[in-house]
Amino acid sequence: MEAAIFDALERIVGSEHIIVDKETLHPYECDGLSVYCSLPTCVVLPASTEEVMAIMALCSQYQITVVARGAGTGLSAGALPIEGGIVLSLARLNSILNIDIKSGLAVVQPGVRNLAISEFASDYGLYYAPDPSSQIACSIGGNVAENAGGVHCLKYGLTVHNIISLVVVTAQGARLSVGDKSADIAGFDFLALMTGSEGMLGVVTEITVRLLPIPELARVIVAGFDNVENAANAVNDIISQGIIPAGLEMMDSYAIQAAEDFAHAGYPKDAHALLLCELDGNADDVNHQLTVTQSILDKAGATSLKVSNSDAERALMWKGRKSAFPAVGRLSPDYYCMDGTIPRRQLAPVLTEIHRLSQHYNLRVANVFHAGDGNLHPLILFDANVPGELEKTEAFGAEILRICVEAGGCITGEHGVGMEKIDQMYEQFNDAELAQFLRVKAAFDTDSLLNPGKGIPTPKHCQEHTIMKRSQSKQEKGGAPNG
Amino acid sequence: MEAAIFDALERIVGSEHIIVDKETLHPYECDGLSVYCSLPTCVVLPASTEEVMAIMALCSQYQITVVARGAGTGLSAGALPIEGGIVLSLARLNSILNIDIKSGLAVVQPGVRNLAISEFASDYGLYYAPDPSSQIACSIGGNVAENAGGVHCLKYGLTVHNIISLVVVTAQGARLSVGDKSADIAGFDFLALMTGSEGMLGVVTEITVRLLPIPELARVIVAGFDNVENAANAVNDIISQGIIPAGLEMMDSYAIQAAEDFAHAGYPKDAHALLLCELDGNADDVNHQLTVTQSILDKAGATSLKVSNSDAERALMWKGRKSAFPAVGRLSPDYYCMDGTIPRRQLAPVLTEIHRLSQHYNLRVANVFHAGDGNLHPLILFDANVPGELEKTEAFGAEILRICVEAGGCITGEHGVGMEKIDQMYEQFNDAELAQFLRVKAAFDTDSLLNPGKGIPTPKHCQEHTIMKRSQSKQEKGGAPNG
Repeated sequence: MEAAIFDALERIVGSEHIIVDKETLHPYECDGLSVYCSLPTCVVLPASTEEVMAIMALCSQYQITVVARGAGTGLSAGALPIEGGIVLSLARLNSILNIDIKSGLAVVQPGVRNLAISEFASDYGLYYAPDPSSQIACSIGGNVAENAGGVHCLKYGLTVHNIISLVVVTAQGARLSVGDKSADIAGFDFLALMTGSEGMLGVVTEITVRLLPIPELARVIVAGFDNVENAANAVNDIISQGIIPAGLEMMDSYAIQAAEDFAHAGYPKDAHALLLCELDGNADDVNHQLTVTQSILDKAGATSLKVSNSDAERALMWKGRKSAFPAVGRLSPDYYCMDGTIPRRQLAPVLTEIHRLSQHYNLRVANVFHAGDGNLHPLILFDANVPGELEKTEAFGAEILRICVEAGGCITGEHGVGMEKIDQMYEQFNDAELAQFLRVKAAFDTDSLLNPGKGIPTPKHCQEHTIMKRSQSKQEKGGAPNG
Repeated sequence: MEAAIFDALERIVGSEHIIVDKETLHPYECDGLSVYCSLPTCVVLPASTEEVMAIMALCSQYQITVVARGAGTGLSAGALPIEGGIVLSLARLNSILNIDIKSGLAVVQPGVRNLAISEFASDYGLYYAPDPSSQIACSIGGNVAENAGGVHCLKYGLTVHNIISLVVVTAQGARLSVGDKSADIAGFDFLALMTGSEGMLGVVTEITVRLLPIPELARVIVAGFDNVENAANAVNDIISQGIIPAGLEMMDSYAIQAAEDFAHAGYPKDAHALLLCELDGNADDVNHQLTVTQSILDKAGATSLKVSNSDAERALMWKGRKSAFPAVGRLSPDYYCMDGTIPRRQLAPVLTEIHRLSQHYNLRVANVFHAGDGNLHPLILFDANVPGELEKTEAFGAEILRICVEAGGCITGEHGVGMEKIDQMYEQFNDAELAQFLRVKAAFDTDSLLNPGKGIPTPKHCQEHTIMKRSQSKQEKGGAPNG
C-alpha cells in the first residue's frame, strides 16, 4: 500500500488508530473459524460514521479492499482479511447512543457487545432478545452482518426480526438510511437485504434495535429421552400444540455427557437425547403451558423430567447447554461446528443420517442444536494432527450441509456463509440465482471492494479458495463458543 | 407493437388469453386510483410460471415494458399501464397449490384472492392474517407487490411478515426462488426486497404464506371520546401497558357519522373520536386483557364504552369501520384517500395539524386509520367539478405526507408509492438513497422493462408525470375500499 494512502488514513483516524506491525495485526488474521487466516495490510479503527465515510471514499479512490470486523467471534470466516486490503475494525464505535423506553427502541453503534445492550436496558425493564452463545463477546454489528440467532430465536426471531433501521456507509463513502420506525417503508426494503449480507453491501455504523419487556417469569424443563427420535417427535408435538417456547434445544449423547461433566447442570448422563424447553411470559401463562408441555413430553416417552424452580436453577440448566461447545472441545483435540437448518419435521431422519455418516467416516459427532427452529449444530470431533482427518472432517461437514438442502433446508442457520460454506452455495442456488446475487452485490459495490469473495461465489472464487485452504490445512477448526 | 410479437404471445398463452380490443381493455386502464389512467397495447393472461417466463423472455428480446397486475384494487396507481407496453394479468394464476397444516403454510398463486386463502384454510382451523379492507377482491400477488396491511397488522404484521418464500420470474425470463422455510437464509435476503417492490424487480408467480390458528376468542371494544387527543393518548396507554390488540382503529367526527349512517354499527354519533380495539387469543387472556383495556380507556376519558358479546356483534362493530371509505364517499362527490405513517406518539399533534390544514384549504377531512401502528388514512373530501379543487386536494395531500415525514414517519403505510407518491420520494430519501434504489432496480431489470416510472423516481420522471396528470385532471379520485 502506498505511503500516501497510509498518510490519508492517518489524517482520518489519527496514527494511534492504525495498526500496521505484524505482532499487533496477528489477532486480526482470522475470526472464530481459525482454519482460514490471512494478514491484512493494516487495521483501521474509526470512531464515527463520518470517519468510516472518509475511509470508504479513500479506499474507493485507491481501489483497496475492505473487510469490516466486529468482535471476530464469527464462525464462517466472514471476517477473514484479504491480502493487500485493510480491516475496518468497528471496535471503537461502541456507544449506546439513545434509548426510547416508551417505544422500546435503542440506537447503538456496531461495536456495542450484544449482552451490553440487555445489561443497559435492564434498568428500564427491557432486553434485547437475540442471544448467540457468544453474546458476552460478540458485537451487534457482527450480529447484523451474519443475521445472528441464539437459543431464543424460536420465539423472538433472528437479528433481522429485532432491528428496525440501520445507518450504512456505501462502498463509495455515501451515507444511507435503511429501514424506518414505520412498519411499511417507501422505496425498496434494504433492511433484510443488508442483514446477513456479511459486510459485502456496505458498512453498518448505526443500528436501531427493538427492546422487549423482560418477561415476568421464565422456567425451563429438562427432559431426557432414551432415543433421538422420541425427542425429535416431542419437539414437533410441543409446537403443533400451539406452544411457542422461548427456547427449545436438543443435545445428544456425547454433548450431554460432555456438558454435564463440564457444568454439573444436573443433566441425566445416561440419556441419549435431552430437550431443554424454556417457557416465558406472564406467570399464569407460563405455569399453564408448563403443565401442558410436561404432559406432552411424558406422552412422547421422556425418561426424566426436571423443572426449574428458581432463576438460579434455570441459569444452571442453561449453563450446560451454553457451555456445550467448549465442553465438547474437551472430548477431542479438535472439533468442527457445523450450522445448517432443516424443516422441523425432518429432525429424526436427518439425525439418523448424520449418525450413519458418523460411522462411515469413523468420526464422532456431538449434536447440540436449536431443535425448535430446525437449526442443527453438529460438532464433528477430529484430530488435526492425524494426517487426512481435517479433510475427512470437511467432507463429512459438506455431506451434512447437502443433507440439509435435500431435506428442504438451508446451508446456514445463523453463522452465515462467509468463506466456509461458499462451495455449498452451488447446492443451494441455481445459476440464475447466483448471478442475481452478484448483480445486487455490484449494484452496491461496483468495484467489489467490500469483503470480496465471501458469501456469494464469484466466477474466479474456486481457484482462490483452494489455494488459501491448502496453505492453512494444519490449522485447528473451532473457536469461540457460538450458536 | 409488431405483429410478430402478437403472434409469439399468442403461441405462449393462446389467442383467447390476449385482450386487444379497446372496449375490453378499458377496465385495465387504471387501478383503484383512477385519476391516473392509460391504455396498454394489450393484456396477456398467462396460466403458469412457465408461460410468464416465456412472456418475459419475449418482452426482454423486443424491449417491451410490462406492468404486472393483480385484482387492480391498489390505491397508488402501481398497476397503471404504460403506453406501448403490455399488462400481464395474473388473474388466471388463481390456484391454491398446496397446504401444509402441520407447518401452517400454504403455497398459492398470485391471482388467489386474499380472503379465499382464509376461507380455504378455515377448514383446518387456520387463517391468513393480513386483511386489507379490499380483501374480498384483492389478490395475494397484489398484496405482495404493495406489502399490503389491514386492520390486524398491528399484532400480525404486514404481508412481508406473513410470507416465507416466493417464486419470481425475472425481467429476462429466469426463475428465482426467493426466501426459504428456514428462518435464516444463505445469500442475500431478497424476500423483503421483493415485497412491496411494486412489480419493478420481477413477477411473482408463487407465494408461500404463513397460516395462523384461528384465535379461540376475539372481542371488540368500541370507545367514544369527546376529543381526538384523548383517543390518541388512549392508544399509547394501551400499548405501553404491554397489550397488543389484534386491531386498534381510530375514526374522527365525519367518519363516525358517515359510517354509522351507512352501517348502523351502533357508534356514538356525537363522539369526536372513536376507537375500535380488538383483542384475540385464548379466552382467559382475552377476557383479562379486556378488563385492563376498559379501565385504561375509562381513565383516558372515554365518554362511551361498548363490548361485543357475540361474533355477530363483533362483525357489526367492524362493519362500520370496514365500510367507512364508501360511507364517507356519500358525504361528498369525491374523496382522496391518503396513506402515511407516523410514530404513534405523534398522533395527537399530527391530527391537530391536519385539522388546521383542513381549515386553511377549506376542504373537509375524515380520518379513518390504523391508530395502533400510526398508519393514517385521511380522506380529503372534494368536488372534482369545482375548478381547481382537485389541485387544491393534491396540494393538501402532499402537505399531509410532508408532515408525516417531518414527524419521523413515512409516505406510505400500506398502499405503496406507485405513481401517486413518486414526488414525495424526494422528501423521504436523499440523492444517495434514490440512486441506490435505481442501481438495485437495474441489477434486476437492466433495461427497465418492469413497471418503469413507478415507485422510485427516475431522472426523467418529473416531466412524464406532469404530462400524464394534466390530461387526466378531471378524473375522480378514490376507488375500491381499502386500508
